[in-house]
Amino acid sequence: MWSFAGFVKMATVDQQQNAEAGKSMEDGYNSEGSDIDKQDKNVKKDEWELFFESHEPPTDFASKKLQMHEFAEGHMKNGTRVVLVTSGGTAVPLENKMVRFIDNFSSGKRGAASAEQFLSEGYAVIFLHRHKTLLPYERHLANTRLTDVLDIRNDSDGTQQIIANQDKFPKLLSILKGYKEVQASNSLLLIEFMMLQEYLYLLQAAAEALSFAGTHAMFYLAAAVSDFYIPSEEMIEHKIQSADGPPNIILHVVPKMLTPLVRHWAPEAFVVSFKLETDRSLLLDKARQALEKYNHQVVIANILEERNEWVTMVTPEEYQKLSITDRNVSCIEELIISDLVTKHTVFIVNNSSE
Amino acid sequence: MWSFAGFVKMATVDQQQNAEAGKSMEDGYNSEGSDIDKQDKNVKKDEWELFFESHEPPTDFASKKLQMHEFAEGHMKNGTRVVLVTSGGTAVPLENKMVRFIDNFSSGKRGAASAEQFLSEGYAVIFLHRHKTLLPYERHLANTRLTDVLDIRNDSDGTQQIIANQDKFPKLLSILKGYKEVQASNSLLLIEFMMLQEYLYLLQAAAEALSFAGTHAMFYLAAAVSDFYIPSEEMIEHKIQSADGPPNIILHVVPKMLTPLVRHWAPEAFVVSFKLETDRSLLLDKARQALEKYNHQVVIANILEERNEWVTMVTPEEYQKLSITDRNVSCIEELIISDLVTKHTVFIVNNSSE
Repeated sequence: MWSFAGFVKMATVDQQQNAEAGKSMEDGYNSEGSDIDKQDKNVKKDEWELFFESHEPPTDFASKKLQMHEFAEGHMKNGTRVVLVTSGGTAVPLENKMVRFIDNFSSGKRGAASAEQFLSEGYAVIFLHRHKTLLPYERHLANTRLTDVLDIRNDSDGTQQIIANQDKFPKLLSILKGYKEVQASNSLLLIEFMMLQEYLYLLQAAAEALSFAGTHAMFYLAAAVSDFYIPSEEMIEHKIQSADGPPNIILHVVPKMLTPLVRHWAPEAFVVSFKLETDRSLLLDKARQALEKYNHQVVIANILEERNEWVTMVTPEEYQKLSITDRNVSCIEELIISDLVTKHTVFIVNNSSE
Repeated sequence: MWSFAGFVKMATVDQQQNAEAGKSMEDGYNSEGSDIDKQDKNVKKDEWELFFESHEPPTDFASKKLQMHEFAEGHMKNGTRVVLVTSGGTAVPLENKMVRFIDNFSSGKRGAASAEQFLSEGYAVIFLHRHKTLLPYERHLANTRLTDVLDIRNDSDGTQQIIANQDKFPKLLSILKGYKEVQASNSLLLIEFMMLQEYLYLLQAAAEALSFAGTHAMFYLAAAVSDFYIPSEEMIEHKIQSADGPPNIILHVVPKMLTPLVRHWAPEAFVVSFKLETDRSLLLDKARQALEKYNHQVVIANILEERNEWVTMVTPEEYQKLSITDRNVSCIEELIISDLVTKHTVFIVNNSSE
């Protein structure tokens, strides 16, 4: 009998880098990105800057960036509010020629359902989503085999038409109408990512595109972003061989991009993040800590297994629980977005310079 | 600046278990599952038996198992050859309440395209596939937004029809016809999995269902199965906290189910496995080793980046390279399946007891 075991161990701080920078670790987690420090030319760059310096942008980055700028600019001219909705999980490759990766569970339902609600509230939506996760409108067809819904009809002129069988899928017509309206008003832009670094580059580009909308921009960060990654220069080139014995892979913590987003990329915007936990006892503390750390407007706290039943909206002023059992709604996202739109309106008024 | 690093380390053999069993490690990897050993009642069970004993079957296992049995039985009565096609990657959770998992890259294209070819060759196909990966026929629509293809037409009687715009998608009609034919002959059974343990249970059940077809059964094992997993009793209960410091997760090697499949579950069947590598220099040696180890019929050797251009068919007798550049075909799977059907016919004749 042959057996084989291994360890995934999250270990020590990257002490070498800190030693080189001559910087004490004492102030810990919250010391990242102090602007005062950075005025001293001898002090090293922020984690997020180092990340972008050591990772190439994705191949189609320039064209996606341009699309987002043009989309945001067009809607801002009309005074339309614009929201970036991020959705789905980011993949972190374990090998340079990617065969295996670490992933986050996320169907994209939260993001896709929320995007529909924002659209119905009159927002223009940039939907930054993981490849193959649910899309607004299309998500309602996700469990339907398309080939089962479509029938072939022989017309009298000898041609063959492909007709959807509405009896098998009664909601199809209304879903399609909703989508066609959005398409006609050009109010939805779909941008896709797969890997962590693609997501981070596109988030920054989206933030810059939306920064011109000032307080009229919202960030609704529902994507399940990896906490750990392997820098590409440390990755194994080829597929890890199961019979080879101990490969050593060092996991690094992904820099939290909320810090530069709130401070530098879109400082006037209304920013909403999510805190998803499986342990109820940690949830509200962690949500409050995030709000204090990043200094943004709302954290939506939710428990994995009940995330479609209730959430708690956490702001500097209050906790507010929203639950579908209290109200006559088709999904929790109706309540979330309705609440956020009100909060956003108040935010715009309060931060108006006039 | 706060940083954080960790290790994924594949380490030592599970020596304790081997010591307990009083079994030497000397014969190593190939010693697994010796039937001679097992006649001695003091000798421990095989790895694959222990895996099933320590993992519960998936909740819908009984109904999927029954479906596969009925499907296989129905087609065997007619003398139809039956193939199990496995497709897509298996997910390995890192936490019991699954948020993060390790995954294998696989779109499912190989499996879905191959299933179509088997169907056109007259085989009945059980398509055991990862949730959300490509399906036969439907795969051709994967990069098409359904909502873009469907138009709403107002009919003179006031009703609204949903019509596919064939100008936007000229191949839709022929794809749909292919699917409707398969549906009419009930020759395709779709069975879905997500996690490693689901896949392994369903593979065993499928093998048992097909074993009654004897030499007329084929196994075409194109799924990208994980090499490593974390036993559920060793998993962390809740989501790993990035700020918590070092969690220790022990990875175990997944037992190779080809061993019991060839020896016990379907010993008369024609079995085809895949060897996917990124390093060309290892490919053929590893394919040949697999064939010697498991004692089955064919290994299809392929390189990740060129897997849609060429493969090498490795049998005990020969290596044979198949390449789309040599022949007028739409995809490499046409060549692979055509070659396998011929090999299967020879196999049936050679192993005929009459």
